[in-house]
Amino acid sequence: MYKEDSYPSELLRNAVESIGMLPGIGKKGALRLALYLLKQPSENVRHFTDSISKLRNDVKYCRICSMISDNDICSICGDSKRDRKTVCVVESVRDVMLIERTGQYRGVYHVLGGIISPIDGVGPSDLTIRELKERVESLCAESENPSDVEVILALSGDVEGETTSFYIYRQIASSGVKISTLARGLGFGDDLDYADELTLGRSIINRQIFKP
Amino acid sequence: MYKEDSYPSELLRNAVESIGMLPGIGKKGALRLALYLLKQPSENVRHFTDSISKLRNDVKYCRICSMISDNDICSICGDSKRDRKTVCVVESVRDVMLIERTGQYRGVYHVLGGIISPIDGVGPSDLTIRELKERVESLCAESENPSDVEVILALSGDVEGETTSFYIYRQIASSGVKISTLARGLGFGDDLDYADELTLGRSIINRQIFKP
Repeated sequence: MYKEDSYPSELLRNAVESIGMLPGIGKKGALRLALYLLKQPSENVRHFTDSISKLRNDVKYCRICSMISDNDICSICGDSKRDRKTVCVVESVRDVMLIERTGQYRGVYHVLGGIISPIDGVGPSDLTIRELKERVESLCAESENPSDVEVILALSGDVEGETTSFYIYRQIASSGVKISTLARGLGFGDDLDYADELTLGRSIINRQIFKP
Repeated sequence: MYKEDSYPSELLRNAVESIGMLPGIGKKGALRLALYLLKQPSENVRHFTDSISKLRNDVKYCRICSMISDNDICSICGDSKRDRKTVCVVESVRDVMLIERTGQYRGVYHVLGGIISPIDGVGPSDLTIRELKERVESLCAESENPSDVEVILALSGDVEGETTSFYIYRQIASSGVKISTLARGLGFGDDLDYADELTLGRSIINRQIFKP
């Protein structure tokens, strides 16, 4: 008889435990995936593990914005049609992808690689904040007026996000660049009934001129 | 701007596409997992891919029952306390694990490695049915009476399961062994309200003597 945590094979146990470390995948799901992989042609499994190894070992980070890239400069920083003086600061690669998919933004990015979170042991020096500061200084030096440069703080609205935004603000405010943040308010099409009080309150305070 | 299916890096795209092939993991989930793996220490990712490669390449199948094993004979077939003349026929490794965890079964198993399914192109010769037949014949030869041998058909109750059970029945019935199948009926603790008509009907037909 197998107990809840016993397996017919140690190889299976190791694979299940590895797969189970992934976020959002429980023990049952990990077993299901391991047995699925076991039934696939050996070539497909090699392709699967290779693609993950290569991603981890060979991916590059853009020298300018720290976005992942196949080259030293990412496709956005390398695009002459993008506005290099508008820098959107985001937590992660995923955020760049989300904003790019809206098709609404023509500036460039700066990927912090995380967010200040003392609980998780992440401090400012673990992020690319120093690089951001240098980048802003060098953009200012190129510009006639520092207010030609805009830094958009596009971080999440939770405590860590606010803390990080505030920290970055203090680092770069003295340079005189324009510093903005994402608009917050009701979602488009949202019903007032479903908005939380804070969001609704902020939406009234930050109300905008009606443009029909 | 990235379109829905464009990525900042081909390495990322390959990894997302590979991970997205897993059952139950969509495109968004695959991207989340790929970016998670990208942030892990390189050593952890190597451990992850190694455990999967090793499972696929090095796992053995029991010579007797086709269960996965670290040895030529699995721990169940190698256990002298198990009743070798009661053979429970199951579709997959997972089914063996499920039945073992009940702690109610002291016989041995036979893993078919799938189920007859013309739609998926799986015929009898793709399964270990021939091996089962030979195993039953050899157990009969060892026994005084073929009815000392019991084959339990523990396959699922859908069309493929029923078809496979019937096919196996026809292959081994002439040997004179006892052939049984799993009891079907209301689940323990189930309310009549929630049972489907077929299950409830079968539960009445196959009613059992009340043993308080």
